[in-house]
Formats: sequence, structure tokens, C-alpha cells
Amino acid sequence: MFEDKNTSKTPLVNLGEFKLIDHLTQSVKPQNKSTVLGIGDDAAIIDHSNNKTLISTDLLLEGIHFDLSYMPLKHLGYKAVMVNLSDLYAMNAKPTQITVSIAVSNRFTVEALEELYTGINLACKNYKVDLVGGDTTSSTSGLMLSLTAIGNATQDRIVKRSGAQEHDLLVVSGDLGAAYTGLQVLEREKAVFKVNPNSQPDLTSYSYSIERQLKPEARKDIIELLEELDIIPSSMIDISDGLSSEILHLSKSSEVGFHVFEEKLPLDPEVNLICEEFKFNTTTAALNGGEDYELLFTIAQKDFDKIKNHPLLSVIGHVTEKNMGCQLITGLGHQIELTAQGWQSFEGEKN
Amino acid sequence: MFEDKNTSKTPLVNLGEFKLIDHLTQSVKPQNKSTVLGIGDDAAIIDHSNNKTLISTDLLLEGIHFDLSYMPLKHLGYKAVMVNLSDLYAMNAKPTQITVSIAVSNRFTVEALEELYTGINLACKNYKVDLVGGDTTSSTSGLMLSLTAIGNATQDRIVKRSGAQEHDLLVVSGDLGAAYTGLQVLEREKAVFKVNPNSQPDLTSYSYSIERQLKPEARKDIIELLEELDIIPSSMIDISDGLSSEILHLSKSSEVGFHVFEEKLPLDPEVNLICEEFKFNTTTAALNGGEDYELLFTIAQKDFDKIKNHPLLSVIGHVTEKNMGCQLITGLGHQIELTAQGWQSFEGEKN
Repeated sequence: MFEDKNTSKTPLVNLGEFKLIDHLTQSVKPQNKSTVLGIGDDAAIIDHSNNKTLISTDLLLEGIHFDLSYMPLKHLGYKAVMVNLSDLYAMNAKPTQITVSIAVSNRFTVEALEELYTGINLACKNYKVDLVGGDTTSSTSGLMLSLTAIGNATQDRIVKRSGAQEHDLLVVSGDLGAAYTGLQVLEREKAVFKVNPNSQPDLTSYSYSIERQLKPEARKDIIELLEELDIIPSSMIDISDGLSSEILHLSKSSEVGFHVFEEKLPLDPEVNLICEEFKFNTTTAALNGGEDYELLFTIAQKDFDKIKNHPLLSVIGHVTEKNMGCQLITGLGHQIELTAQGWQSFEGEKN
Repeated sequence: MFEDKNTSKTPLVNLGEFKLIDHLTQSVKPQNKSTVLGIGDDAAIIDHSNNKTLISTDLLLEGIHFDLSYMPLKHLGYKAVMVNLSDLYAMNAKPTQITVSIAVSNRFTVEALEELYTGINLACKNYKVDLVGGDTTSSTSGLMLSLTAIGNATQDRIVKRSGAQEHDLLVVSGDLGAAYTGLQVLEREKAVFKVNPNSQPDLTSYSYSIERQLKPEARKDIIELLEELDIIPSSMIDISDGLSSEILHLSKSSEVGFHVFEEKLPLDPEVNLICEEFKFNTTTAALNGGEDYELLFTIAQKDFDKIKNHPLLSVIGHVTEKNMGCQLITGLGHQIELTAQGWQSFEGEKN
């Protein structure tokens, strides 16, 4: 039953469900005043006083969302928390608590799960979020993570997907496409490793992209920056599935169209180099790569001066009437309609 | 890729993730004033005003927690919600919102997931809870459900596991063991069906037990009853893993011992009959069967008159000093120490 061959590791059966969760969460100490009761009862208790409570949940499965052959468990734990917190930042809210449920097969050892929780705990510490509960169960196949983030905000600061107005500016934080190029590099190294397990790849020239893929950061800093700059976006979303897909979400919820300018898309130089090496279109990586966990939002034109030339923010387009649809304006001035699933069909149109 | 052979059904690939969740949740309408924003944004928004927010989460996996060969998907959806709400009732809180995340393999059709959501929606309607979010993803093996329940209570009404005091009475709602005997009957029928797929079992004499296994109800009514009777338990937990295991949880959290009287354990007559048929000890079914989703709580002796002879409540024991441990007092007056895992080792001691 126990597949791990390393006998110095501790099989899960040695602990059992109740002891496992006690063991993994023994170092957890609440950091937020709003955490009235954390792990150890039927439910956690949270006091958000007069603020609104916000809640968001994510499900991450081995073989679908992550590949443990190049994703260290510590990074997986960290990233899982980032993915989850990112949704609350996308509402302009402050995450305060998370719950983490895991299903694991017997091929994982107690030490492996400790690694996972090291990443989870580090993320909680860095983002001042309390782990307040969860569920632990065995699985017949692989590792599954289910996270729920709870946060709060005052009513007047909450930003939904639905508030974009015609003529608003479309703004994105950071840069785009690097999580995707990082994934391409990792997938290639995995293929090389299968053929030659002794290969020692030099990945230094891909380090930014690989870090974006393996250890993304949720944009807490952007939420704090917006508050400092006294800006409340009219609509906002985080970029998990790709810029193109997220623009379509804002378009649908706000009932508006968008013009996005290809030449304004922020790209790290490394993304250009990797795209060249892999013979991949950089615009496609930026539009459809996904997993950037940047924030995409719209602001009123009157707020433009506040963000002009800010190194963390790029104005990439503006809001149009609904019936104009969502259009990418290329460097040559051509209009191409944005699609959600399809960088393939999109590629076809570009060629 | 698509394993379903019935061509009148709709394969999941026809919809895609975004449309699937839209499709399954299109009939969802908020019932609670506290649901400010439900499905469709990065996070749900909840307003619990000056009340405390409570949160609890559960992970349910095919092959571990449920067997679709005898668990209809509608019942599975209903039961998954009950399991989750039961945790909030166990805090003496009122559940108001849930999130439901699902991972499904391609062997499920859109119609199958509609069945699942029919059960989820019925549970939400019956318990006046709003479905406010979730995540949908594909799975490489089977069906997984992750639910998070959010609720609220005023600080003075919240009941933890940790408040039991020496001399308090130990009370349980409803009856015990029937979910377990129901499972035994269903497992037997599954085995019979494998040998003879044309068998037409008559299960009418097992109907209560089967219903307890397939369609349990969370004890909202007990929480309402306690309020009516003006009782705030000193500690409380719901019975998911079995009475014995839950008593040990209360013991650990409250740092007390318990005396439980075998002859006071409430049993439905059907449980006695099935136990006789299966040559199974009824006390073991009641103590270690699990999945009863009854509430187990302690009350001060001064509250005894309020619950005396109430048909829904049974006093089954009392709180002792910590160093006396958790003891079952048998009909013959013998003391047997309660254990969590082990009805096997326990059985050994009884024989």
C-alpha cells in the first residue's frame, strides 16, 4: 500500500487523519484580530465587524493544474495560496483567513506534506493571512488541494467585474506571458530529463519566467498602491486564464466592449527571448498564456494622471460600446477579435 | 475521451468550464439578505453585520466517501450539503451561504451533473442557504466535491467543543447507528447485484436505515429547539465519524472525561433488526458507525428539566473529571474505555 521506497520517511498511515492535521498545523498562530477561532473545532469563527465578508474558492488537482515532476511541493503550497488570494485582491479586498483541504494518496509521506505546508505557511506569513481550517482525506489517485480565502472590505471599496464604463482606461499590473514561457521551459526540461536523467540544465537565462510559473506572487502591493493613489477601479479581475479570457469576462459582466493595443502589452525581455527560441508569438503568450496573476482593471480617465508612467502599471487600452466587441489593435492597425479558448484560431487569423 | 455510451446525453466537452458553471447555477437565487453578491465574480460578498462569521469546509471523493453504484447523484448533492451544514449547526450557528467546487472526469455527462445540482439546490432551498460560488475543473479520475459553508451567530450563542464542565449532562439528538446499518444493506445489495444483475431486492424493511445513509438531514431543527428551550450547550459537535470518536474530541478540547451509559443509547428498532440479521453488535453500530449527523452536546444540570422526556433528545451520560477518561458503562455495569478508530479493538474487549 505504501509506495514510497525511502524507508527513512514516515508513511501517512503512521499518523492517521486527526494527528496528521494537528501535526501539519501545529505552528499556525493567528495574525489577524478578526480570527476569533482557528483550527480545531467544527468551524472557524471570524469577526469582520461592520465590513463585508468576501469569499473565494479554488480546486487544484495533480495532473490537471500542477505537475509534481517539476513543481516542488513547497512551491505548490505557496502557489495554491497565491491563486486563492489573488481572487480577493481582484475584488479590492483584503484576505484575512484561508482554509486548506487536501486529499492525498499513500505515495506521499508525512515529510512530503510538511514541505507542502511549509509553502502554505510561508505564503500565509508573507500575506498576513490566517490558516483557520480544512479537511484532510485519503485519495485513490494523487494530490488534490481545495482552498477557500475569506477577506473583507468596506462596501465603498469593493470592485466587481461589472462596473466598467465607456471611455474608461484598461490597466494591467506587472507584465504578461512569463508564467507561460516558464511553463514551456519546464516542459522541455522534463522531456529532456526523460531521455537523459543525468542532464544538468542551465536554466539561469530563464529564471524570471520559471519563478513566475513556480512561485507567483498575488498583487497585494497593487491593492495598497491603488489605495495610496486614491483610485477605486470601476471594474477588476485577476489574470488566471489569460488576458484575453479576462477581458471577455469584464466585457460580459460590464456589458461593454474593449480596444486593446498590441504594442502596449507589457512584456519582460526574457519573454521575448524565450518566444524567439521556441518560435512562439509573444502577443499570443501575453494574451492567452495565463497564470500571470496580475490585476486587470478599468479606471476613469480623470484618474490617468495618478498612474501615468507608474512602473508597475500599464494602460493597455480603453472601454468601448458593447456592440464594438473586444478587439486587439495590432501594431499595423488591424483589428482582431479576442477569443477566450483560442489562441489557435487566433493564431490562424494572425498568419 | 468521452466514455459515456448513451448518445442522447450531452458530453461535458460540449459546454466548457465557464458555460458549465453558468448552466448548472442558472436557477440559483439568493434567499438571504446577507448574500450581497453571489456567483459570477472573483469572490462572493457577504454582510454579517455585527454577527460573527463562521466557516467550515469538507472534501468528498468518489471511492473514498461515496460509491456511485448505489448513491444516486441527486442524493449525493443533497448529502454533501448536509455534511457541510452540520458542522455549522454544531457551533450553534446558522448557515447562510455555501460554495461548491467540483472536479469531474469526462465519464460524467451534463445531465449527470444537473442531477447532482438538483440535489444541491434542493438542500439549499430546504435549509435556506445560498450557493454563492465555487470552482469547476476536470479530473483524471472520478468525481470530487469540495464544499465550504459560511454562517453566522452572535458571540453569546456560539458553542465550541471546549466548554464542557464536570457534572454537565451529555445529550444526543435523534438516534444512532442507522446510517451505518443502511450502508451494510447497500453494500450487500451491491455484492448481490454483481452476481445477479437481474435481482430485484425488496428493501422496504430497511427503508429508514437506507434513507439515513443516502439522504441524511442536518439538525437545523435541534438548533431551533435549543433556542426555543433557552438552552445554550456548554460544548457541542456533530456526529460524522461516530459517537465514540466525537466524545473523545469533546473530551480532548474540554479537558474532561465522560461516562456514557450503553442502555441509554437511542436506537431505531430497525437498527436492532438489521444488526441481528448481520450478526453485528448494536452498541458498536451506535458508537462507531458514523455518518449519523446528529448533534452531541453537553448542558448544565440546571437545564435538565427543559429537555426531560423530549422525543428528539436523549441524555446518554455525563461529564466526569479528566483523569477518569471516557468510559462506556455497559448494561451489566462494566466500564469499557472508548476508543476512536477502533470498534475492532473495542469488539475484542467486549468478547
